[in-house]
Amino acid sequence: MAHIYIYSPSGAVRDRGAFRRGVKRLQSLGHEVEIDAAALDSWQRFAGDDATRLAAIGRAAASGADVALISRGGFGIARLLPDLPYRQIAKAVEKGTRFVGFSDFTAFQLALLAKTGAVTWAGPALCEGFGTGDSSNKAGEGGKSEPDGPDDIMLACFDDLIHGIGEGTGWRLPADSAKLSLKGFKARQAPLWGGNLAVLTSLLGTPYFPDIKKGVLFLEDVGEHPYRIERMLSQLLLSGVLARQQAIVLGQFTDYTLSSHDKGYSLAKVVEWLRGHVKVPVLTGLPFGHVPTKVLLPVGLKVELLLEDREALLLWGHVHGDHAH
Amino acid sequence: MAHIYIYSPSGAVRDRGAFRRGVKRLQSLGHEVEIDAAALDSWQRFAGDDATRLAAIGRAAASGADVALISRGGFGIARLLPDLPYRQIAKAVEKGTRFVGFSDFTAFQLALLAKTGAVTWAGPALCEGFGTGDSSNKAGEGGKSEPDGPDDIMLACFDDLIHGIGEGTGWRLPADSAKLSLKGFKARQAPLWGGNLAVLTSLLGTPYFPDIKKGVLFLEDVGEHPYRIERMLSQLLLSGVLARQQAIVLGQFTDYTLSSHDKGYSLAKVVEWLRGHVKVPVLTGLPFGHVPTKVLLPVGLKVELLLEDREALLLWGHVHGDHAH
Repeated sequence: MAHIYIYSPSGAVRDRGAFRRGVKRLQSLGHEVEIDAAALDSWQRFAGDDATRLAAIGRAAASGADVALISRGGFGIARLLPDLPYRQIAKAVEKGTRFVGFSDFTAFQLALLAKTGAVTWAGPALCEGFGTGDSSNKAGEGGKSEPDGPDDIMLACFDDLIHGIGEGTGWRLPADSAKLSLKGFKARQAPLWGGNLAVLTSLLGTPYFPDIKKGVLFLEDVGEHPYRIERMLSQLLLSGVLARQQAIVLGQFTDYTLSSHDKGYSLAKVVEWLRGHVKVPVLTGLPFGHVPTKVLLPVGLKVELLLEDREALLLWGHVHGDHAH
Repeated sequence: MAHIYIYSPSGAVRDRGAFRRGVKRLQSLGHEVEIDAAALDSWQRFAGDDATRLAAIGRAAASGADVALISRGGFGIARLLPDLPYRQIAKAVEKGTRFVGFSDFTAFQLALLAKTGAVTWAGPALCEGFGTGDSSNKAGEGGKSEPDGPDDIMLACFDDLIHGIGEGTGWRLPADSAKLSLKGFKARQAPLWGGNLAVLTSLLGTPYFPDIKKGVLFLEDVGEHPYRIERMLSQLLLSGVLARQQAIVLGQFTDYTLSSHDKGYSLAKVVEWLRGHVKVPVLTGLPFGHVPTKVLLPVGLKVELLLEDREALLLWGHVHGDHAH
């Protein structure tokens, strides 16, 4: 099927069981899995020191693989930004290697987009996407002898990517988005970009933040209290980034805890606040983030965003040749 | 003594005991304390809705007080930035009102500096600086009948501010700073600026981030893991902000927890990394942050930074008239 290259540009892999399970699952799907020599390196909290991880990225770009898949996210790309082999990566993309990842990998994707315009894919990581479940631990727990496998929708999207037949994705809008007066809304010829909100925002003001106009910006995050999410959205708002887009699409924001101090302040209130401060539509519910059910999204590709009743459709399959709009 | 105006521009005051103790302590120091009508307001997590807090800021600026002191930090200034009465605040500063605060208040201070150049003071908040201890609760616990009062150094700095006799501050450099080869280092005519790292960084790319060249930048934070501190410093580094300064001065970074995943990664490693990436001296140990012992620092004033053996001296008393350098 496909040649998949596994490498570690960010945090050290601590859960080797998840790593092994992920590799086995990709192999059982028929793929040829190549593992980078430093994929399991560890230095402080990183998957090897900066030079090691830069070299691993270089090898992933030189691998000729169909997919270069990160082992996991974490933290570490920020340090590498001035030294990433942007041209080599863009060349690899041109030759057909699809770079896939998320979370900390957002920094890689956006910097590459800013420097070269090359398209990469927001999607799973090996451990978190394919290495889920642990049959050896759960076998004895009675009734749970089957491990929780990878998410079906993520697998189908990954399969589409590999076969080059993915033409878009869709999701049902939550009530808060559905009640917006957006009948007939269309974003056209819109560069799709985004990823992890904290990582994306941490590039603002640097040469690694892509200057995308009339785009569709998608955002997700994990472990950030809504006030922090608001502070980051506020930075994007006040810097003028949001107003330059055709649409803002919020994915999943997970693993935070509200406190008694919040007294009604919530993520929903933040979205409400945001909608009061930008004219651009702010949609919610995109199945993307630190959650199992995750679609794959082409970062840097021009898309159409259509709303049909309560369905949102993000289409990229026929957008390229579609200059009639 | 002084007329002190207490107002709440950010988070709602939940600890009314600390508020009352703070007011009493200021009064017992001989000050006339005026409390803003909305100082104890509460709306969601904020001290009143946005209009309420904007009005409170306006009243603080119109109060004619010697010191306008925030009740506490929290979160909330970001929302107000486009609507702050900058001219009115700058006028109040001109007439002698010293605005004092920290943490979320950093956004107010830096935006004001960006928009008007007006000088404000990084220093305590009412609850956290003057409202510490709780004699009523502890009286019965045997042996601890005396509450923990405000910090002596903070009180002395606050007193200097009120009497207009503060001419600077100094601190003993920790070993990591002392071993740098900085003999004879001087920063001259350097605008002092900074505050909370997360809040300061959240202004990058917006019109509220002051464009300070050849400054002395001081930073502190609370509850941020070193990797987040690194990510924020990285943003300041990659945006060119750090290289434009004469010195970076790190205050106190507190209340974070390292995990087993860090494996030797620490705040000290982050400082080491930073020093390897900027030519500008990075000093540590400034007594400022979310800690009791906190000096008061004039944000926007030109200072001299001198190193004498293991002592760092930040001087502003005679810098204005001192054009002979």
